Amino acid sequence: MLLNCDLGESYGPWRMGMDAHVMPHIDLANIACGFHGGDPLTLAETLALAREHGVSVGAHPAYPDLVGFGRRSMNLSREELIATLRYQVAALDGMAACAGLALDYVKPHGALYNDMMRDAVIRDAVLTALAGFHRPLRLMLLATAAADTHREEAARHGVELLFEAFADRCYDDEGHLLSRREPGAVHGRERMLEQVESLVGDRAVTTASGRRLPLEAETLCVHGDNEEGVRAIREIRERVGERAPTAGA
Amino acid sequence: MLLNCDLGESYGPWRMGMDAHVMPHIDLANIACGFHGGDPLTLAETLALAREHGVSVGAHPAYPDLVGFGRRSMNLSREELIATLRYQVAALDGMAACAGLALDYVKPHGALYNDMMRDAVIRDAVLTALAGFHRPLRLMLLATAAADTHREEAARHGVELLFEAFADRCYDDEGHLLSRREPGAVHGRERMLEQVESLVGDRAVTTASGRRLPLEAETLCVHGDNEEGVRAIREIRERVGERAPTAGA
Amino acid sequence: MLLNCDLGESYGPWRMGMDAHVMPHIDLANIACGFHGGDPLTLAETLALAREHGVSVGAHPAYPDLVGFGRRSMNLSREELIATLRYQVAALDGMAACAGLALDYVKPHGALYNDMMRDAVIRDAVLTALAGFHRPLRLMLLATAAADTHREEAARHGVELLFEAFADRCYDDEGHLLSRREPGAVHGRERMLEQVESLVGDRAVTTASGRRLPLEAETLCVHGDNEEGVRAIREIRERVGERAPTAGA
Amino acid sequence: MLLNCDLGESYGPWRMGMDAHVMPHIDLANIACGFHGGDPLTLAETLALAREHGVSVGAHPAYPDLVGFGRRSMNLSREELIATLRYQVAALDGMAACAGLALDYVKPHGALYNDMMRDAVIRDAVLTALAGFHRPLRLMLLATAAADTHREEAARHGVELLFEAFADRCYDDEGHLLSRREPGAVHGRERMLEQVESLVGDRAVTTASGRRLPLEAETLCVHGDNEEGVRAIREIRERVGERAPTAGA
Repeated sequence: MLLNCDLGESYGPWRMGMDAHVMPHIDLANIACGFHGGDPLTLAETLALAREHGVSVGAHPAYPDLVGFGRRSMNLSREELIATLRYQVAALDGMAACAGLALDYVKPHGALYNDMMRDAVIRDAVLTALAGFHRPLRLMLLATAAADTHREEAARHGVELLFEAFADRCYDDEGHLLSRREPGAVHGRERMLEQVESLVGDRAVTTASGRRLPLEAETLCVHGDNEEGVRAIREIRERVGERAPTAGA
Repeated sequence: MLLNCDLGESYGPWRMGMDAHVMPHIDLANIACGFHGGDPLTLAETLALAREHGVSVGAHPAYPDLVGFGRRSMNLSREELIATLRYQVAALDGMAACAGLALDYVKPHGALYNDMMRDAVIRDAVLTALAGFHRPLRLMLLATAAADTHREEAARHGVELLFEAFADRCYDDEGHLLSRREPGAVHGRERMLEQVESLVGDRAVTTASGRRLPLEAETLCVHGDNEEGVRAIREIRERVGERAPTAGA
Repeated sequence: MLLNCDLGESYGPWRMGMDAHVMPHIDLANIACGFHGGDPLTLAETLALAREHGVSVGAHPAYPDLVGFGRRSMNLSREELIATLRYQVAALDGMAACAGLALDYVKPHGALYNDMMRDAVIRDAVLTALAGFHRPLRLMLLATAAADTHREEAARHGVELLFEAFADRCYDDEGHLLSRREPGAVHGRERMLEQVESLVGDRAVTTASGRRLPLEAETLCVHGDNEEGVRAIREIRERVGERAPTAGA
Repeated sequence: MLLNCDLGESYGPWRMGMDAHVMPHIDLANIACGFHGGDPLTLAETLALAREHGVSVGAHPAYPDLVGFGRRSMNLSREELIATLRYQVAALDGMAACAGLALDYVKPHGALYNDMMRDAVIRDAVLTALAGFHRPLRLMLLATAAADTHREEAARHGVELLFEAFADRCYDDEGHLLSRREPGAVHGRERMLEQVESLVGDRAVTTASGRRLPLEAETLCVHGDNEEGVRAIREIRERVGERAPTAGA
C-alpha cells in the first residue's frame, strides 16, 4: 500500500502544506501544476525534494481557478478541458525531466477530481487527454464499487489506472466519500487507523451504514497540511510498512 | 533566410493576430506559452495549424504579466526566472509532442527578450534554463555586433543559437533596434523591402547613421497583427524565396 | 425604451467591442469591472467615453474567470459572492465618481446573470450585495413571466429593479431566452426589428411556440461586438426614438 | 505616535499575517486591495475586524503582480498607474463604506512604495491619482530628509501627507531604509525598542553611520507576520502609549 499526498501547493509568497516534513514518509507526490497553486519556482523546489527522497511524482492538474483553489466545478468545453489538462501535465512533465525524474501518473485536483468520479463525460475527456499525451501516464482515481467500469473505460483508451482510498474519510455504500459537510465524514485518529488496517489487511472498508465494502486500492491519500497531519502520516506509515526501496526510482 | 512570427497570442475570448493567414507563409512559429497570452486551447489550435502547414515551432515564453502582455521588465530572481522559463517551455514542448511536433527553439518575448539582449546576467539565466532542459533547444536572439560574444556565452552552456533580424525596424550602429518611440524607428514598405534584400543579399543593414553594419541572421522576424502585416509577409516571402521543403519536418 | 450595451470588456492588449462607435447610440453602458474583462485603464477610458456622450453607467460584475470570460457558472459561497460583487461594484463606482459620473445600476454578467435568473438563492445574494451597498443602486435583470415575483423579492431588500428585454433573441413561454445552441435562438435583422417594435408598441413578444407573451421592459440589450452589431444598434435606435436629453445626466 | 500595519494580505485558501491578533493593538490598518493579495472576501473580513476594534483603514494598493506579491517594479505608463491605483482604492473605499467605515488614507505597497520614494515622476502619478479621487484621502509615505520637498509636491496637488517611520529598520543618512540585503538592516528587539523611544521622544533616529537624523513621523510601521512580530507590536504599543480613544472613529 503506497502513500500519496498533495504537495507543491504554495503560491508566490504564500506557503501551504508541510512539504519538507511529508516527503520522507510518502511514496507518491501529487504535485500542483500552477492552476490552483504551485508557481514555477515552487514546482522546481518540490520536484527537487521528491528526487532527494526517492518519491515518485504525479501531476495534480486543476480547473483554472486560483482564488478558489480549484475547488469549484467549471463547465469547460471538452476541447478546453483536454488542452487545459495537457498544458498542466506537460509543464510538470518537462520540469520533472529537468530534475531527473520521470512523471509517473496524473491525479486531477479538487472539483475536477470529483467531477471526473461523478460524470462519465468528464472522465472520458480526462482519459482522452492522457491517451493522447506523448508518453504513457497512469490515472489515479478513487477506488469505488464502480472500479470495474472505470477499468473498462480506461482500457478502451489504453490508459492504466491507479486506485486510491482515503484513510480519514467515511465512505457511503457505493464507495464514494461522504461530503465533508455531513456529520461523521472525517474520521478521528482511532477510526482512521482502523480504516488503514482494514484497507491493507481486508481490502475493504466499513461504510457509513455499517456495511463492509470491498475496495481494491493501491495507494492511500494522506494530508500534510499541518503538524497533526504529519503525525497521522507517520502513524499510517507504520501500519502500511516501510517504503519500498524502488519507490520513485 | 527563414521567416519567423509570433503566434498563439489570443487569450480566452480575445483574439490577436491573423494566425491562420500567416502560418502558410512562415518557416518558424514562435508560440506564446500562457504567461503573456495563449490559453491552453489557443496553444493546441496553434500547434495543429503549425503542423498542418509544416512550420517549425518554438516556445515564446514571457514574464508573468498578462495584463501588460509581457512588455514590462520584472526583476525576477535568477531561480524564479529559470523556473518560469522551464515551466513555459515544458508546457509548450509537451503540447507540441501531443500534436506530433518537436519543439525546435525558444525565443523570449517582449521585455524578457529586450532584457536578455541588454543584460548578460539575464542572458546567463536564459541559457542556464535551456542548458538544463531535458533535451536540446536552440535560443533565438537578435543578430547584433555582439554576436561573437553571444556565441561564446552560448557555447559555454552548450546551447546553439539562431540569430534573427528585423525587416521593418531601423538599427543603430551596434545592431540594436531603435526604440519605437524614436522617429524613423519603423520602416515603411519600401525601406522594409530594401532591408530584406540587403539582409539576404549582403548580410548587412544600413543603420540610422547611414553606416553599413554586417549582420549574419538566419531568420527574419515578421508580424501578422493585421492585413497590412500579412501583405508585408507575402512580399517578404517573395524576396527570400520559397519555403524550404524540409521546414518543420 | 432605453438601449443598454456591454462595454469596457477589452483587457490589456486585447481589444473587444466597438465601444467608441456604440456609445453615441445607447442610453445605458454596462461596464465590465475587471473580473471577466476590463483592466483599470480600459475602465477609465470607457467611463470618460460615457461621460462624453451623456450615457448612464452601470456595473457589469462577473464571476472571477478571466480566461472563460465569466461565462461559466462557479459555485461561490454566499459570503464570497457578496464580497466579490461589492468589490467590483465599488471599484467601478469609485472610478465613475472620479470621472464625474454617478453609477446608476448593476447588471450581472454572463453565467452570473443566468444563474441569478434561474436560482432564487443566487438572486438573494445579489440583492443582499446591493441592499448593503453604501448607496442605492438598481438591479438590471431579464423581464420574464416571473417579474412580479422578482419585484417582491427586490422590495423586501429595498432594491429597485430595471427590466430588460432582448431584441435579437427568441423567447420561450416563460420569458426566458432560448439557449444559443438551439435553432432559431438568435433572430436575423427582420425578426429582430419586428421584436423591437412589438416590445415598444405592444409590450409583448412572440415566443418560440408562437404565443404572445406580455413583457414590461424599460430597456433593450444591444450588442456592439462588430460592424454588423453597430448597424443593428442604429436601426434599433431609429425604432425606439431619440435618446432622452436627460439620459446620463 | 500611531501604529500602522499591513493587513488583509491572505488570498483565497492561503493565509498570511496574524491579522486578528494584530488588529487590537494598532491604530491604522493598511489593507490590501486585491492586486498583490487580498481577495474580496478577505477584504470584507479585514474591514469587519477593523471596525470591531475601532481601527482606521487605509488602502494598500500595489502593482498588478500576484505571484510576485507586488515586490517587483513594473514600468506602467502614467495613465495605467493612475487608473490602477484608483481602481484598487475605489474597491476598498466602497467596501469600507459597506462596512460602515470611511477610508482614511492610501499607502502604496512594496515596489510601488519604494518607486514612489525614489522617483518624483511616480510620486507625481500617485499624487495625481489621489488628487483626482472623488473625495480627499491622505498619502502615507516614508519620513526622510526630503520631507519638506514631499510636502511641497503634495501641497501642489492638494493632498495631505502622513509620514511614517520604521521601528525595526536601520536608516541611512538621507532617511532611507537600508536594503534588507545589507548587514544590520533589520534591528533586533533591543535596538528596535531604542529606535521607538528615540522616534517618540526625540523625533530622530541614529543612522547606520552613527549620525542623529531628525525624523518627524506621525506613525510607526509594525509587522504582524508571525508570533514574534505580534509580541514586538505589544512591546512597541507599551512604549508609544495607549491607543487614542478617537482612533478609527
